[in-house]
Amino acid sequence: MNGAESLVRTLLASGVDTCFANPGTSEMHFVAALDQVPGVRCVLGLFEGVVTGAADGYWRMSHRPAATLLHLGPGLANGVANLHNARKAASGIVNVVGEHATYHLQYDAPLTSDIDGIARPVSAWIGRARAAHDVPKLGAEAVSVARSGSGRIATMVLPADTAWTEVTGPAPALPVPPRAKVDDSAIAAAAAALKKAGPRGILVLGGHALLRPCLLVAARIAAATGCKLSNPGASARMERGGGLPRVGRVPYILQQALAYLKDTDEMVLVGARRPVAFFAYPGQPSLLTPDHCRITPVADVDDDLLDALERLADAVQAPKTAPAPPALPKPDLPDGAPTFEKIAAAVAALIPDHAIVLDESLTSGRGIFAASEASGPHDWLQNMGGSIGYSLPMAVGCAIACPDRKVVALTGDGSAFYTLQALWTMAREQLDVTVVIFANRSYNILRGELANVGAANPGPRAIDMLTLDRPNPDWVALAKGHGVAAERVDDMAAFARAFRGALREKGPRLIELVL
Amino acid sequence: MNGAESLVRTLLASGVDTCFANPGTSEMHFVAALDQVPGVRCVLGLFEGVVTGAADGYWRMSHRPAATLLHLGPGLANGVANLHNARKAASGIVNVVGEHATYHLQYDAPLTSDIDGIARPVSAWIGRARAAHDVPKLGAEAVSVARSGSGRIATMVLPADTAWTEVTGPAPALPVPPRAKVDDSAIAAAAAALKKAGPRGILVLGGHALLRPCLLVAARIAAATGCKLSNPGASARMERGGGLPRVGRVPYILQQALAYLKDTDEMVLVGARRPVAFFAYPGQPSLLTPDHCRITPVADVDDDLLDALERLADAVQAPKTAPAPPALPKPDLPDGAPTFEKIAAAVAALIPDHAIVLDESLTSGRGIFAASEASGPHDWLQNMGGSIGYSLPMAVGCAIACPDRKVVALTGDGSAFYTLQALWTMAREQLDVTVVIFANRSYNILRGELANVGAANPGPRAIDMLTLDRPNPDWVALAKGHGVAAERVDDMAAFARAFRGALREKGPRLIELVL
Repeated sequence: MNGAESLVRTLLASGVDTCFANPGTSEMHFVAALDQVPGVRCVLGLFEGVVTGAADGYWRMSHRPAATLLHLGPGLANGVANLHNARKAASGIVNVVGEHATYHLQYDAPLTSDIDGIARPVSAWIGRARAAHDVPKLGAEAVSVARSGSGRIATMVLPADTAWTEVTGPAPALPVPPRAKVDDSAIAAAAAALKKAGPRGILVLGGHALLRPCLLVAARIAAATGCKLSNPGASARMERGGGLPRVGRVPYILQQALAYLKDTDEMVLVGARRPVAFFAYPGQPSLLTPDHCRITPVADVDDDLLDALERLADAVQAPKTAPAPPALPKPDLPDGAPTFEKIAAAVAALIPDHAIVLDESLTSGRGIFAASEASGPHDWLQNMGGSIGYSLPMAVGCAIACPDRKVVALTGDGSAFYTLQALWTMAREQLDVTVVIFANRSYNILRGELANVGAANPGPRAIDMLTLDRPNPDWVALAKGHGVAAERVDDMAAFARAFRGALREKGPRLIELVL
Repeated sequence: MNGAESLVRTLLASGVDTCFANPGTSEMHFVAALDQVPGVRCVLGLFEGVVTGAADGYWRMSHRPAATLLHLGPGLANGVANLHNARKAASGIVNVVGEHATYHLQYDAPLTSDIDGIARPVSAWIGRARAAHDVPKLGAEAVSVARSGSGRIATMVLPADTAWTEVTGPAPALPVPPRAKVDDSAIAAAAAALKKAGPRGILVLGGHALLRPCLLVAARIAAATGCKLSNPGASARMERGGGLPRVGRVPYILQQALAYLKDTDEMVLVGARRPVAFFAYPGQPSLLTPDHCRITPVADVDDDLLDALERLADAVQAPKTAPAPPALPKPDLPDGAPTFEKIAAAVAALIPDHAIVLDESLTSGRGIFAASEASGPHDWLQNMGGSIGYSLPMAVGCAIACPDRKVVALTGDGSAFYTLQALWTMAREQLDVTVVIFANRSYNILRGELANVGAANPGPRAIDMLTLDRPNPDWVALAKGHGVAAERVDDMAAFARAFRGALREKGPRLIELVL
């Protein structure tokens, strides 16, 4: 077998059976190998940002790395923004980046570029095959790196001749290093802090501490100490509802964040870092915690968070179980013209049980998180890196990881434009995704930011840079162009009808809610 | 004034009056400054690949750098693929990349990334403002770098606090270093080679050697020596028609390229490098010239190519003028089902005088280049970096640089998908662009490549990675979604009617030719 086939077989042996791809000439042997190796699902994206975002979503829902297949440096570069988001979410991904044949590089052909340089800012590990026999070895190492800790991005560079040259065979899977246990001293310090602070303590959870097993332990700690539970502002994936404790989040808006944390004396971090402002603003603090608040970091996102929380529960003499929070009544379905409050109520009322919700709604959907505490059990996924255009690609990956669950992607129109090609993959794979576009026809978040940074009265040329009108995008047409059925609504009764209808059907649907 | 305003004023003082932008919070002061400084045109792109591709097109047609405005590392990363293409085309661009406030970086907020690392693979120069007073100075330096040689990519990193802090004022323009003159010895060697080889000599031209002033001198050299004129496979911009000499190109297909060059004894390079295969193929050469061919490099793309050619013309005792090549009859307009030959004929017959033609048609349009030797005077622009998704963004920049000329973007459907958001900017700015999508609903070029690399009988999963059907994209809907009028045709008579109609009107139009 050739290097490419050995790589596909190595990936499969290491547990990687899904590949999101946008290949070119230099990846043709890998593509050809797909038909030689049963068991690998390969999903085409028409743009690499779709490919890498899908791999991120796949990881977050399966905790297994997918491979990406990317065409040399520029193909990788097109995927970097969503790799940045994946890195910040601590997702595991194995990038396979085609490269010119080793002997061809010296001629600086048009597509020659510094692939390693492009990979470095987003990769925990870069492996470049120098010869075909490196390929299976590097493939196994890449998967092992991707599965380390909470998850890492491993980028493997595959020169064409290393793909087409014969090798002896695939490499076996490498062991994945276990997650580190945290020190007893950190547990003891955290226990003391939370016991002392009572309701003025906050336990900030990140990474897999926001998943069910950890959340049930966190609830016991909260029951014992009276502390609040929160995420640091966003969650790579948070399980909610179905008896899980309610976990707040540090608001995006700076003044709200400062208010949210102002009465905090002790903050304990498990799988999360100290909350900081998303951006700096003139004359405003970068740190969101008050001066009197002490910070106790217990565990990094890569550590064994369940172990840390269980030991912390023991240290605070937590009860064996904590009562589930009382169910909240679902909001009534609103009608009339859309407002942010009505949007929050309508979405929260209709989110189906076990949905995977991708939140990229920015301004329009800011109230949905709180309102959806009344929804049934679901997963809530957010952008951890701040590079917009994450939710539609992520939806592809989530739907492929969890074909039996409904994926709901809530996105602003500005964000959706970055990677709208994801719609085509949804159509091709008939993924069970409901996309809601909140069409305010502007980068509305930036209009607020313009004031926050001290530019209060923007002139027409500044406003032009923040608006998506002139012309208004037509998301029904854009969806149709990609093969996805869609409808446009502009009042809440019609939205509820359309949203409910889309949720009931299997397959991709898009709703444009004009604000 | 603050740093941002000083930068806008510095750019303007240095001759940069056009900015392609996709800003975010960290760039809001720059955006606000636009209304304080008359004379800068700022054009919004809904994706950064549109922004950087537009800047490339703007440079190629104006030879003046545009600024781009990009949102931190991920925003820059989204623009890297088209910056790669621009770098390979030796285009001058000033990237302004917003960054977190200097004091905020330590907190590793979500959008924090290694901007310098992302910029490095595509930038000749990177300047990071450490304080506000650096900003105007770096702005002037960035423009000077961008205008050096044939054109360079300069990337300036602008932390938010350096943009919002007060400074004394803008910086004056810096001088642009003159292009280097080549050595007499290179001229003498080239003259000897071309005289000796006669019709077995080839003068390969690149960079501004493919523009009118140089081409007229090259024609005299060819008249004196009998040499052929060629570009090395693609041209950043080539002027054609209107009495200019005919300049061939080294074919993309390897076997055709070898045949094209097989009788060449002497190759002289002026502003171009030795032609090499686009990709390596098993058992095939990387170099396209035969073993017996001697190569004489005369001038690098950054050198003074007009001076080099004039001295070469003198050295071969060239006549003062060369006769213009006889005009070719325009092809007849074909009808019936589309074939590559008919496409070539129809486009060549209808290209209007003084059009700017962007060629990203890959397989379907491969014959247009030769056929359009019969067209009137026009410019022919190609992808120099091989990263697809260049033509629609480039069309935006060309149209803004040359509002009085018709821009014709010829693109495959696969390529167009990467940066289709450019259509929206065409609509907003009412740019005079006719887009032709050759809709073969596949990465057709890769089907050929699959065979070339030795994977002759692809199975269904490989084929799936190369096809864009299931579902078929609907480019009329995609165009409508972006605000651009469009129509679909599937026979050549309808195509000719639609193409002629679009060329006659002002403003953006899209034609989907289904193959």
